[in-house]
Amino acid sequence: MDITKAMQAVEDAMFATVDSEVIVLRDASRHILSAGGKRVRPRLVMLSYAATGGQDSARAVPVAAAVELVHTASVVHDDINDHGYVRRGRPSVNALWGRTFALLTGDFLFTKVYELMAPYQDLNIILSEATMALVEGETLQAAAAKEGNLNRETYYQIIARKTAALFKAGAQLGAELSHATQEQIDALARYGFNVGLAFQIIDDILDLIADSAQLGKTAGLDLAQGKGVGSAYVTHNGNQAVAEQVAVADDPLTAIKQKILKGDAIQEARTQAAMLVQQAVQELDVLPESAAKQELIALAQLIIERDH
Amino acid sequence: MDITKAMQAVEDAMFATVDSEVIVLRDASRHILSAGGKRVRPRLVMLSYAATGGQDSARAVPVAAAVELVHTASVVHDDINDHGYVRRGRPSVNALWGRTFALLTGDFLFTKVYELMAPYQDLNIILSEATMALVEGETLQAAAAKEGNLNRETYYQIIARKTAALFKAGAQLGAELSHATQEQIDALARYGFNVGLAFQIIDDILDLIADSAQLGKTAGLDLAQGKGVGSAYVTHNGNQAVAEQVAVADDPLTAIKQKILKGDAIQEARTQAAMLVQQAVQELDVLPESAAKQELIALAQLIIERDH
Repeated sequence: MDITKAMQAVEDAMFATVDSEVIVLRDASRHILSAGGKRVRPRLVMLSYAATGGQDSARAVPVAAAVELVHTASVVHDDINDHGYVRRGRPSVNALWGRTFALLTGDFLFTKVYELMAPYQDLNIILSEATMALVEGETLQAAAAKEGNLNRETYYQIIARKTAALFKAGAQLGAELSHATQEQIDALARYGFNVGLAFQIIDDILDLIADSAQLGKTAGLDLAQGKGVGSAYVTHNGNQAVAEQVAVADDPLTAIKQKILKGDAIQEARTQAAMLVQQAVQELDVLPESAAKQELIALAQLIIERDH
Repeated sequence: MDITKAMQAVEDAMFATVDSEVIVLRDASRHILSAGGKRVRPRLVMLSYAATGGQDSARAVPVAAAVELVHTASVVHDDINDHGYVRRGRPSVNALWGRTFALLTGDFLFTKVYELMAPYQDLNIILSEATMALVEGETLQAAAAKEGNLNRETYYQIIARKTAALFKAGAQLGAELSHATQEQIDALARYGFNVGLAFQIIDDILDLIADSAQLGKTAGLDLAQGKGVGSAYVTHNGNQAVAEQVAVADDPLTAIKQKILKGDAIQEARTQAAMLVQQAVQELDVLPESAAKQELIALAQLIIERDH
């Protein structure tokens, strides 16, 4: 399977599926999709499919598109709740079309997921459970931010649900689609889960240190709302008091950044992400050698090396 | 099939499915579900199933629950967009938990739909297309309200999508579940669609004339936002100027009510709803006599007679 061609087919499938007679929904969906994004989730689906012997990429493409649309829908709704006005270097749907249409565009994208998944019978439950986890993770995060009560365990529960669950589902779905062995399916699910955890930890670190222009979204926003603080918890074993104090600061952004950047929290979090990636890569030992397997290894390693 | 027992099983299924470790999602979902509602959509599913020979009500119950959860999710999101603080005589999810958690609760409920539907393979596409139509209808409505450009045709497009499509899907799903003949399935789909149109027309009329206490929701809100005005368009053949003028009034509520209540618009809309119900009932001629068939007839007629 040519992964570049396959990923282009995923793009085409996403654009085709968001076509609607209702112009606002079509245009807002195209806007967020054409802004790009890393497409790491659908890539996981396609590579997992190929690495377990899948040959017919057309069979996996709609599932990969569905997985990315779950993420896209959650991004659109997230920007409403976070008052995020820049996303992927462009104005958010929320900024351009307003809250009402952003909410409906998210609903539209969430529903398109199940239109794409309808032919896939037993695989539906995998994606709906991952989507459920994502919504639960976002809710835990909002609750923790509201209560100013984000400890290490809660941070882990949040990122496991809001990010790792969908990565896991993506890798698992690819293997299910190729009718891989149960051992391979389980190994890829664990691979996806650990890669997802690492991805989110790095994301939170980048949110802490990146400036707005580099990240292409309203940087520091997660932080200002007490979310990105989580990465401090990941690493500050037994010293939660500092971060808690920080989370309730009146003008939190500058203060938090300074405190965290002074310590070794970021380096510790990077180390943890690297360990997760190492575990993930080891899971791939059950797969036969292939170009797709090598790309799965590279994808995992790229996650801890990325700077945006 | 004992419809009362079956509807209780639908209630139980809905409450069971919204259970979550994430307390906010569980409590907010229980809140909106326990506020009641007419449950006309799941009743359609169960009656359509029974009227086409379905015996095993346990098979239809999760689908009926899923159809009601689509409606429930849309209600929760609608109350965000409309700033609705009263729903079914109680504070809305939005009012009690705030916008962020209301948005996530709606996403949670939308996703639960597909968890319930996962075992139903080919039926998934019917419900996802109806949900898509619902979102498109809500979007058309918001766009029309924003542009102050609601004509008769747009009104019909809105209510066909936002209400009639889900009624149609409900009736159709019941028949599909019992493996009815294609003739019966098509007839029940048309029955559901027409009943749905009539239901929304009556709803808009009630919104115009009911006071807040009687309706159990923030009455006049749809009207104030230029939505309920649609019922005027349904009936004011060739005289759209009045309603258009009305839709852009500065203090619209009182002015619109007075204008519409003075004319014969409401009586004309009631007549149209009655005709739609009559057409719907005629579709049932293809069904054998049964208690469920009689209940479908009664359900349709109750819709035009209801006062809340």
